Formats: sequence, structure tokens, C-alpha cells
Amino acid sequence: MAKKSYPLSKVYGLLEPGPVVMVTTVRKGRPNIMTMSWHTMMEFEPPLIGCVISGRNYTFDILLETGECVINLPTVELAEKAVACGNCSGRKRDKFKAFGLTPAPASRVAPPLIEECYANLECRVADLDMVEKYNFFVLEVLKAWIDPAVEDPKTIHHRGRGIFVADGERLKLRSQMK
Amino acid sequence: MAKKSYPLSKVYGLLEPGPVVMVTTVRKGRPNIMTMSWHTMMEFEPPLIGCVISGRNYTFDILLETGECVINLPTVELAEKAVACGNCSGRKRDKFKAFGLTPAPASRVAPPLIEECYANLECRVADLDMVEKYNFFVLEVLKAWIDPAVEDPKTIHHRGRGIFVADGERLKLRSQMK
Repeated sequence: MAKKSYPLSKVYGLLEPGPVVMVTTVRKGRPNIMTMSWHTMMEFEPPLIGCVISGRNYTFDILLETGECVINLPTVELAEKAVACGNCSGRKRDKFKAFGLTPAPASRVAPPLIEECYANLECRVADLDMVEKYNFFVLEVLKAWIDPAVEDPKTIHHRGRGIFVADGERLKLRSQMK
Repeated sequence: MAKKSYPLSKVYGLLEPGPVVMVTTVRKGRPNIMTMSWHTMMEFEPPLIGCVISGRNYTFDILLETGECVINLPTVELAEKAVACGNCSGRKRDKFKAFGLTPAPASRVAPPLIEECYANLECRVADLDMVEKYNFFVLEVLKAWIDPAVEDPKTIHHRGRGIFVADGERLKLRSQMK
């Protein structure tokens, strides 16, 4: 599936619904994947994302060291692989190989995109001020990609303890909110 | 509908999926409601929530002044009222009256719960350090309520520009993630 460049001004609409995402990083040529749900948009453009990454996660160390990651958005078809990536650490295994995911080169950062995800956001760490107190990173999206073949992506949302909900009915309401 | 006390340790599971929420505040006896999607969990227990509230919102001023709010979770049945609350300012009107919503007394804070919402989180502002740079408030949940009659709440999620998605299929996967 060929990804298309996606306008940075529209990125908020991908993350504002609160989907489970898969964060890729790389250190010394070894890529890693972490599954994450604690994130929020913080600014429209350039898009800023705030996220909490536990200090116990391997990704925490890599992100501090390299300052780069990709946020990949899986649809429900990838739910089992997303959960599998959350169930183990990348310290000892290559999760791309373990779970049959395909790394694809990013354009602005070193970590790979996950090819199977319908959208990918290349990010750099923009602010570390809240890491010490809350493990909270502020990321800036430098480049965004989307799979134009996926018209109504069903993302997944985590209610805790392995219970997930996939997107259902779509509603169009007269909103003045951006 | 009689609400039941909900364990603080389980609150993260309500917000981690990223639903649209309605934030209530009160100043000089006048309650207000703001619709919000830019929020994330930051800690399990006591539950900490991070959220971005634009400085243009009336709620921003009230929250800075009073340090208290309630985060109310609507289901899809309330989608139109949630959007209506986002389409206007509380500076000039009482949104409870305008949209037929019922204020109910909270136990630990001054702002009212929205009776029609299936869950309510009474919060105090815990950290203002990131307000200047990002309009980002850290809230601590002091008390949580849930409607035990709502078994599988369908929350709504905002994709931007009036497009919302309601919760669909529920999945149970073998996850080691909390």
C-alpha cells in the first residue's frame, strides 16, 4: 500500500479520538515498537502531541537518547499485533520480526514507519520539561503519512485490562469546533 | 438514575479510550459546561488527568480562579447536546438550562455533575506549571461516580470538523497492560 503525504494541519483529527497507537524508535540500528494509549493533542499546527511513557519501557530510554519516534496508527485488523507489542519488551527481541510487521523508511527521522498501519506521524521530541515529574514528553509532528485506500479506518481504544473497543457508527453533527 | 461511587483505581479505564467529555465549572453560583477532547491520563492512582483548555474558553478563566471542575462522560445519546455545549460560550448563557441538562451536587467540589452523563469525575487542579506554555492543566480526580445501569456505554470520539465516531465492537484480548 502506497502512503500519501498528509497535511500537518489535519493531524489532530487522527489522534483526538484517542486511538491506541504504536510508537517506533531505533537505537544502534535496532528498531523497537511500543503500544501506547496515554496521549493527547496539544497544538494544531505545527502539531504537538503530549504523551506519557513509563520509565520502565525500553522506549523511554531510547526516546531520551535519540529524541525521535514515529507514531503509527493501527486499525482493528492489527489489534492482536498491537497488543502483542505491548505484552513484551524490545530489550530482548525485534518486535518487527517477532510479530510480522514491516519497517519502512521515514523521511525526516531515523525510526521506521510500520507499513501495516494506516497512518504514520514522524516526530521529534520538542519539550522534556515534564519528563522528570510525569514521564510526559511533548512531541512535534514533522511529517505525516496516510494510506489513501483506507476510507473509514476503525481504530481501537483501550478500556484497560485487555478490553478494547473498535470504532463504530460515524456521526456528522453541526459543530463549530475545529 | 442513581449514581454509584466508582473506585479511583479504575478511573483510567474511562478516559484512556479518548472520549469526548463535558467539563463543568462554577463561578459565583453560575455553572458552566465546556466540551473537550484534548485530554490524557497521566497517573493511575491517585488518577491524574492532563488536558488542554484554550485561553479563549470561559472555562479557562474559571478553572484558573477556582481550581475545581467535574469531568462528565456522555454516551452517544447525548452527542447532540455535547456538541451544542461546544458551539457556544457560557459567558452569556446557562448551558444547563439552554440544553436541558440537569446539575447534580458533587461531594468534594463546588461544580455540579451533569446528571445525564453516565460517569462523573470530581477534580481539583493539581499543577498549573504547563498552563502558560501550553494551556495544559493537570487535574487530580478526588471522587468518581458511575451509573451502574449503563453496562456497555457507547462514548463518542471526535475526528474534527463535526465528524464523530461512536464506540462499536468490544474486543477482549490477552493483554498484560494495565
